[in-house]
Amino acid sequence: MYKKIALKEMQTEDFIRENEKTGEICIVKSRLRDIEPIAVGKGMFTKVNANIGTSKEIDSLEDEIIKLELAVKSGADAVMDLSTGKNIDYVRSKILEKCKVPLGTVPIYQLMAEALENKKKIDKITEKDFFESVEKHANQGVDFVTVHTGINRKTLQILKKSPRLISVVSRGGSFILEWMKKTGQENPFFEYFDELIKISKKYDMALSLGDGMRPGCLNDSTDNAQIDELQNICLQAKKCVSKQAKVFIEGPGHVPLNEIEINVKLQKKLSGKVPFYVLGPLVTDIAPGYDHITGAIGGAIAAAAGADFLCYVTPAEHLRLPSLEDVKTGVISAKIAAHAADIVKRGEAALKRDREFSEFRRDFDWKKQKIYSIDPEMFDKYVDSKISDNNTPCTLCGEYCAMKEKFNE
Amino acid sequence: MYKKIALKEMQTEDFIRENEKTGEICIVKSRLRDIEPIAVGKGMFTKVNANIGTSKEIDSLEDEIIKLELAVKSGADAVMDLSTGKNIDYVRSKILEKCKVPLGTVPIYQLMAEALENKKKIDKITEKDFFESVEKHANQGVDFVTVHTGINRKTLQILKKSPRLISVVSRGGSFILEWMKKTGQENPFFEYFDELIKISKKYDMALSLGDGMRPGCLNDSTDNAQIDELQNICLQAKKCVSKQAKVFIEGPGHVPLNEIEINVKLQKKLSGKVPFYVLGPLVTDIAPGYDHITGAIGGAIAAAAGADFLCYVTPAEHLRLPSLEDVKTGVISAKIAAHAADIVKRGEAALKRDREFSEFRRDFDWKKQKIYSIDPEMFDKYVDSKISDNNTPCTLCGEYCAMKEKFNE
Repeated sequence: MYKKIALKEMQTEDFIRENEKTGEICIVKSRLRDIEPIAVGKGMFTKVNANIGTSKEIDSLEDEIIKLELAVKSGADAVMDLSTGKNIDYVRSKILEKCKVPLGTVPIYQLMAEALENKKKIDKITEKDFFESVEKHANQGVDFVTVHTGINRKTLQILKKSPRLISVVSRGGSFILEWMKKTGQENPFFEYFDELIKISKKYDMALSLGDGMRPGCLNDSTDNAQIDELQNICLQAKKCVSKQAKVFIEGPGHVPLNEIEINVKLQKKLSGKVPFYVLGPLVTDIAPGYDHITGAIGGAIAAAAGADFLCYVTPAEHLRLPSLEDVKTGVISAKIAAHAADIVKRGEAALKRDREFSEFRRDFDWKKQKIYSIDPEMFDKYVDSKISDNNTPCTLCGEYCAMKEKFNE
Repeated sequence: MYKKIALKEMQTEDFIRENEKTGEICIVKSRLRDIEPIAVGKGMFTKVNANIGTSKEIDSLEDEIIKLELAVKSGADAVMDLSTGKNIDYVRSKILEKCKVPLGTVPIYQLMAEALENKKKIDKITEKDFFESVEKHANQGVDFVTVHTGINRKTLQILKKSPRLISVVSRGGSFILEWMKKTGQENPFFEYFDELIKISKKYDMALSLGDGMRPGCLNDSTDNAQIDELQNICLQAKKCVSKQAKVFIEGPGHVPLNEIEINVKLQKKLSGKVPFYVLGPLVTDIAPGYDHITGAIGGAIAAAAGADFLCYVTPAEHLRLPSLEDVKTGVISAKIAAHAADIVKRGEAALKRDREFSEFRRDFDWKKQKIYSIDPEMFDKYVDSKISDNNTPCTLCGEYCAMKEKFNE
C-alpha cells in the first residue's frame, strides 16, 4: 500500500510512514473496503471531495450513482454520501459498492432523517443512538465519517454572548445543539469522545472532526464560537494521533480572503499539523450561482497556505441540490484550486503538467492540449476542428497570434 | 466630477484630489467624451474591464455592440475595443457612441491589421505611423490606450540570454519586437515616450503602459524579460505623474499563486504606487474552458494585494473569440474577484452588501437575495418559485436546513 501511495504522491515510502505516525498524513480507507486508499496531508497532493446523496425531495439512488461516477471521472479523490431520503442503509450499501474512491458519510444525518421520518421527538434520541449510528456506518465499510465533536454546552453560551448574524449553518451542528437544548445534556460526541476513537480504530475508519460552528457568512467568520470549537477539535485530534486513530479536521466556510491563511495556520498550530479539510472557503456571500468560483478562490488560497483536502462547492450551493452538470463544475473548480495550490506546495511535481501543456500550446498542438487539459470535454466545446486538425492559432487573435513569432532564437 | 466620484467611491473629494496628484489615483475619461469617469487606484473600489472587438474571422459590428451592452449590464466598469476586422475607424466610432463607460483601445493593433490588410511590409511602417495611430484614437475620444512602451532592444537580448518557454504572448509586444527586428530600430514608444505624454495631456487620455513581456505560462513568470520591462514602464509612469499625464500600468498574465503578491508589491514600489491593471493573473496553464476561474483566483489575490483594475478573462481565453455567454461569465467572475478583494481593501464599504445579503439568506427572503446577488438572472435559473414565493429553505438541505433553528436567543 505505501509503495503505491509513494509512487502516486511522488514521495518516499519513509516520508509517508513517518508523517502518518505524527498524524500529519492521514491514509483514508476502511479496513473493510477493497479500494485504493488516498493519502491526505503534508507533502501530498491536495485532494478534492464531492458530496452526493438522496434527499426527501429528490430521492433517486440511480441519479446519485450517476453523480458519483461523474464526480470520480471528473477527478474527485473522495465522495461523501449525504443521503437523507428513504432506505438510507440500502442506498449507502449500493453507493459503497459502486464507489472506488474513499467514501465518507455524516451518520448524524441519518439519525436526524429517521427521527423525522418516524415522527420520533428529538429528545427521545439517546446518547447510545449517536454512537450506534456511527458504528453502523463503520460496519458497512464507510472510509471516513464527519462527527461534530467540538461543540458543547459552552457553545450555546457563546452564541448568546457573541451572537452571530446566522447562528448555525452546519446541519449536524444545528441538530446536536438542538438535541442539547431539548435534553439539557452535553454533546455525546464531545463527552464520550474516546468511544469514537474505539470505533475508528476497530474499522480503520478516519474521523473527520466536523465544524458545527462553521461561519455561514463573512460577518461571522473567525469568531468566538468558531475558534472555541476549533480548540476542542484540535485537542481531540491530538488524542486520536496519540492513540494512532485516523483523523483530520474540518474547517470553514464563509471567510474573507485575508482571514483564510490565519485560519489554516491556527488549525495547524493548535492540532499539531493534523490534515485540514475545508469547505470552500467562500470569499463572498453575494454570488449565488457562482459559489464554485467563490470557493475556488478561497480553496486555492487555503490549500496554498497548508489545507490538504477541499470539499467541492457547486454553483447550486445555497440554492438547490446540485444537478449532474453542477457536480461536474464543482469538481473541476475545486481541482483547479487544488492544482493551483499544489504548484505552490509541491513545486515541480505539480508544475510539470503546466509546462508540458504550455509546450503544446506554443506549438499549436491542440490534440495534446486536450489530453493534458483539466476537462477534455470542455476543451472540445470550445475548439474548432478546423483549428485542431491543422495546428493553427485559435480565433481569439487569429493571424495576429503573438505565439507565431519566436524571439528566443 | 470629484463630488460624484467621491460619493460613488465612499471617500472624500480631498482624498481623491490628493491621490490623483501623486498619481496613485487615475481618473479615466477623455476630454472629448460625455460619460461618467471612473477612478482607478488607491482607496477606490477595484474596477473590471471587458475586452470586445471584431476580428477578421468574426466581423460583425452589431454583435460587438451587443457584447458591449451585456458587458456593461453585467458590471464592467470599462471596455476595451480590440477590433481588427474591417473599417476599424468606423467600428470604433460606433462603439464609442454606444459606450457609456470609459473605452480603451490598442492603437498598434489597427496599425498591424491595416498593414496586413494592405499587404504593406512591416518594415515599411514608420515611427511616425506609431504615434499617428495613437493620436487618431485619442482624437476620436478614446479614454485610455494601451501602449507597449517598456520593451526595447535590450528585451531582444534578454530573450536570447534567458529564453522562455513561450517567448511573447502579447500581440502588441510581438508586433513591436518584430518591427524592431526587421528595421533594426528602437521601439518608438520607448525612444520617444514624451510624445505619448503630449498626446495624453492634449486629450486627457490615460496611458495604459502595456506589458509586452507578459508571461504566457507559469514557467515564464516573474523572469528577467518581464521584470526588466516593468522597470522601464515604472520609470515612464513616474515621468507621466511628474507631468500630470494620466497613467496606469499593465501587468501579468500567467503567474503562480505565490508570486502574485510579489508582482503587485514590486510594481507599486518601482512606480511610486501608480494604479496596476492586471490580466488575470492565471494561476495555472492547464484549465482551458475555465480560465475565468483561474483568472478569478489570481485576480482576487492580486487585487487584495493592491492591484486596482482587473481585465476580465473569459472561459474562451486561449481557445476562441468569446461568445455573448462567455463575455457575461467573464465579467461576473472578475466582479467576484474584485469584490472579494474589496472586502479586504475597503472593509465595511464593501462588506455591507454581504452582510445585508446574508440577513436575507438567514430570513429565507429569496426575492431580496435575488436583487442583492451578483447576477440576478443566474439566481432565477437556480431558485424554484415554490421556494422563493413561500420563504422556505431550498432543496439542498430541505427541512434539515440548519438556519431554521436560531441559537442566538
